[in-house]
Amino acid sequence: MAAEEAAVRAQAEAVRRLKQDKADPDEIAKEVAKLLEMKAQLGGDEGKHKFVLKTPKGTRDYSPKQMAIRERVFNAIITCFKRHGAEVIDTPVFELKETLTGKYGEDSKLIYDLKDQGGELLSLRYDLTVPFARYLAMNKITNIKRYHIAKVYRRDNPAMTRGRYREFYQCDFDIAGQFDPMIPDAECLKIVHEILSDLQLGDFLIKVNDRRILDGMFAVCGVPDSKFRTICSSVDKLDKIPWEEVRSEMVGEKGLSPEAADHIGDYVQLHGGLDLIEQLLQDPKLSQNKLAKEGLGDMKLLFEYLTLFGITGKISFDLSLARGLDYYTGVIFEAVLLQPENDHVEEPVSVGSVAGGGRYDGLVGMFDPKGRKVPCVGVSIGIERIFSILEQRVEASEEKIRTTETQVLVASAQKKLLEERLKLISELWNAGIKAEVLYKKNPKLLNQLQYCEDTGIPLVAIVGEQELKDGVVKLRVVATREETWINSINQTNKAALVAWAKETGIHLVQINGQRRYGGPPPGM
Amino acid sequence: MAAEEAAVRAQAEAVRRLKQDKADPDEIAKEVAKLLEMKAQLGGDEGKHKFVLKTPKGTRDYSPKQMAIRERVFNAIITCFKRHGAEVIDTPVFELKETLTGKYGEDSKLIYDLKDQGGELLSLRYDLTVPFARYLAMNKITNIKRYHIAKVYRRDNPAMTRGRYREFYQCDFDIAGQFDPMIPDAECLKIVHEILSDLQLGDFLIKVNDRRILDGMFAVCGVPDSKFRTICSSVDKLDKIPWEEVRSEMVGEKGLSPEAADHIGDYVQLHGGLDLIEQLLQDPKLSQNKLAKEGLGDMKLLFEYLTLFGITGKISFDLSLARGLDYYTGVIFEAVLLQPENDHVEEPVSVGSVAGGGRYDGLVGMFDPKGRKVPCVGVSIGIERIFSILEQRVEASEEKIRTTETQVLVASAQKKLLEERLKLISELWNAGIKAEVLYKKNPKLLNQLQYCEDTGIPLVAIVGEQELKDGVVKLRVVATREETWINSINQTNKAALVAWAKETGIHLVQINGQRRYGGPPPGM
Repeated sequence: MAAEEAAVRAQAEAVRRLKQDKADPDEIAKEVAKLLEMKAQLGGDEGKHKFVLKTPKGTRDYSPKQMAIRERVFNAIITCFKRHGAEVIDTPVFELKETLTGKYGEDSKLIYDLKDQGGELLSLRYDLTVPFARYLAMNKITNIKRYHIAKVYRRDNPAMTRGRYREFYQCDFDIAGQFDPMIPDAECLKIVHEILSDLQLGDFLIKVNDRRILDGMFAVCGVPDSKFRTICSSVDKLDKIPWEEVRSEMVGEKGLSPEAADHIGDYVQLHGGLDLIEQLLQDPKLSQNKLAKEGLGDMKLLFEYLTLFGITGKISFDLSLARGLDYYTGVIFEAVLLQPENDHVEEPVSVGSVAGGGRYDGLVGMFDPKGRKVPCVGVSIGIERIFSILEQRVEASEEKIRTTETQVLVASAQKKLLEERLKLISELWNAGIKAEVLYKKNPKLLNQLQYCEDTGIPLVAIVGEQELKDGVVKLRVVATREETWINSINQTNKAALVAWAKETGIHLVQINGQRRYGGPPPGM
Repeated sequence: MAAEEAAVRAQAEAVRRLKQDKADPDEIAKEVAKLLEMKAQLGGDEGKHKFVLKTPKGTRDYSPKQMAIRERVFNAIITCFKRHGAEVIDTPVFELKETLTGKYGEDSKLIYDLKDQGGELLSLRYDLTVPFARYLAMNKITNIKRYHIAKVYRRDNPAMTRGRYREFYQCDFDIAGQFDPMIPDAECLKIVHEILSDLQLGDFLIKVNDRRILDGMFAVCGVPDSKFRTICSSVDKLDKIPWEEVRSEMVGEKGLSPEAADHIGDYVQLHGGLDLIEQLLQDPKLSQNKLAKEGLGDMKLLFEYLTLFGITGKISFDLSLARGLDYYTGVIFEAVLLQPENDHVEEPVSVGSVAGGGRYDGLVGMFDPKGRKVPCVGVSIGIERIFSILEQRVEASEEKIRTTETQVLVASAQKKLLEERLKLISELWNAGIKAEVLYKKNPKLLNQLQYCEDTGIPLVAIVGEQELKDGVVKLRVVATREETWINSINQTNKAALVAWAKETGIHLVQINGQRRYGGPPPGM
């Protein structure tokens, strides 16, 4: 035992030194964890309860109240996806490591790998798009419209107050199949528009661009082919840092000529609608580039469809939109919330991306043994940011959110009535009524009523000595304290009881005989 | 490049040798994966598409049809949990490794660890119970009734045809708090009874026992304290292997005396109801053991409550039920489906466990810095087995399951009507109607009608040249081919349209004027 204790002391010393040296916090946390595990294994009271009581970095639990808000948001999103005829699928939380390899460009370093415990090498999914493509290729599906709502994992630097986590939900809707151009693409934008409107998050803007327009632009600006992807990820930073910094990254770090950079700078500040598309179709350089011309032609078609959908008011063709992921091949888009207008600000300021997506016609083919392509376009709703906003709004409004749906509390007026309460609640449950009972032999009536107040239960069914003699149950509306009596609760009068529960006044429920107590129901 | 190619050849040779030697299949799979990755990195057409197109061992995708069945089951379960007043929480898919350490006994070897990529050491959750206990201790919650439906992970030997996977859903309902004895425990059993009855899976039996009765029994049979847990896990195998084998494991592998083993053998064949409890309360040895007496007293109380709930017909107090997990401290239970009765079989045979649970009063205290206990009891529904059964049943019945909820397909009778179709479907979506359109410029009417037949869409809204002239839309019921015309679809007539969609006959929808075509609706 002395040897183990010495090892623990040495580890404790190592931790102290790391802290002194202000080492990497992750490094410290890891050594502290090791120390605590050593202590715990040592046994004895000292080490026994020295767990680090926390969730892993960048993750969180959801409390019942948060779950209630989350359910509202999910319902709005799922309702929209179903309105557009989507099926739903699910895939495992991890994939073979090689399935994810080479799909995410510079972001691949953020993938969580599982430990090699013998068997296959696995990684946690980074998004839902690559597993979707793997699913299509594996099952030889060439045509599907599906949604998928699930957690994904990124070893990023979390910024949890801004809704950025290492474990977070994605809500994806994708259309796979060979179709006439831009019809599915337009539907994806319509979906984003519907969801953001439904959720009433405030004003928003959906930026649209096309990878082919970007690539064409890079070509006519004199960017060498080999630098397309890296220059593209520089452009992608324009929503966070000003052009001057992006330019110096292009020229300094990435070795682009200053002329090419300035040329790009002229283009990426452009944004607009059909006018801008027409203008660029006439642009002497871009119009000579095959890719750009294709992209602009499709962009024009897209705007025509969006006009039919009546949503161009919130769509902006924006040449600075790039999106980081490698797999996009055509249209790309991103929705941002705008801050409320303000006298001091000329243009509304974007406060963050809440949805994004695009076309990826090559991804499925990467998985198919014969390289057969299945064109896809899809959208991903950034649910965590939306949660954060709605959570803050609920906090601010002091709205009281119920976390259960219980309709009736079965209570007793006197002691020794546990058996009667259990018999009654069993009847309620069997009739499909949502009911609770306090898990006490002899709870005080006041405590039972207080429980209803605290949790928002609208009705109390009270068992008392007098009621037992009379063969009835007393029902009380918590909010108004109005009371009535019923003989029993069963399938037949369930609907009436529930209706009664929803009203503030009393609607007398008569079963198997006459009403025995109480005045007439209101309005009689 | 030659060096890389040589490495690939060497790896291929290594794989061949492993296969020849009939090595561990996991080992082979790993080396094959390595080989394919090496080939892929080599580039060229040969290696390019040599992905292993599969989900990780023991996992599966869910197709839209499977998801439709899954949704039904989840709905039944969630409805029951809400009927009992449960809140809902969620926790991360991984926990700090040390959070899971020492909670699962011999099963700990089945935990998936994440790779050490710097930072904390993490493991995938093995169940939802330990994360729940961590959540309670971390947030100092002493009182909650919650459900949690999420995936858990076990590196077990998958038996997928029998519904056993490495990634699978658990549906947990737990009651935490200091309450009067056996009331929450009885509610957990009521919940299992309700869910298994609702799902109509056939006859079932809920076996009940108590860890204290088991431990008391081991003590009076002469099992040394240090062997309680390991002997307990032998007893746990009685549902899979016969007593003789369990006995020889106890005596042979685990060094128990033959007398003690035989003594245990006498007890573990007992099962019954209140009678058996009364009998054991009089048992000369068990009645002298403090733990057993406590357990039997509580078991009696539990059966009294279950009698009030009217469910004792499907409950069996069974001394052979042990359950493997370390954290149980009181009542334990497990629900099994019974094969339909058969002339050749005297007693119905169990075909597998579909729910289980028990009381774990010490688990939260293991996480609390001061060791404060929060008594808990809970149940976990084994959803994967239930899916397997229902899936097989759907296959056998040839029931056609719809995987979308689309109400209307917007179709065109002639060419060049894409714009009109998009305008109309946009109206439908905005009115909250679930609608689809084929993503073709000029689809054939026959193909559009076929799509409805294939996917079960009940209604078609047809745009045609004549209809455009008349300013109407033609609606057709796919099943009956009956038709009517309406002027436009909007919020006002949405309800009527949906009602119309649900009927087989035509219910004429009149808007902004007179019905222009078609006969009177049926019944007029």
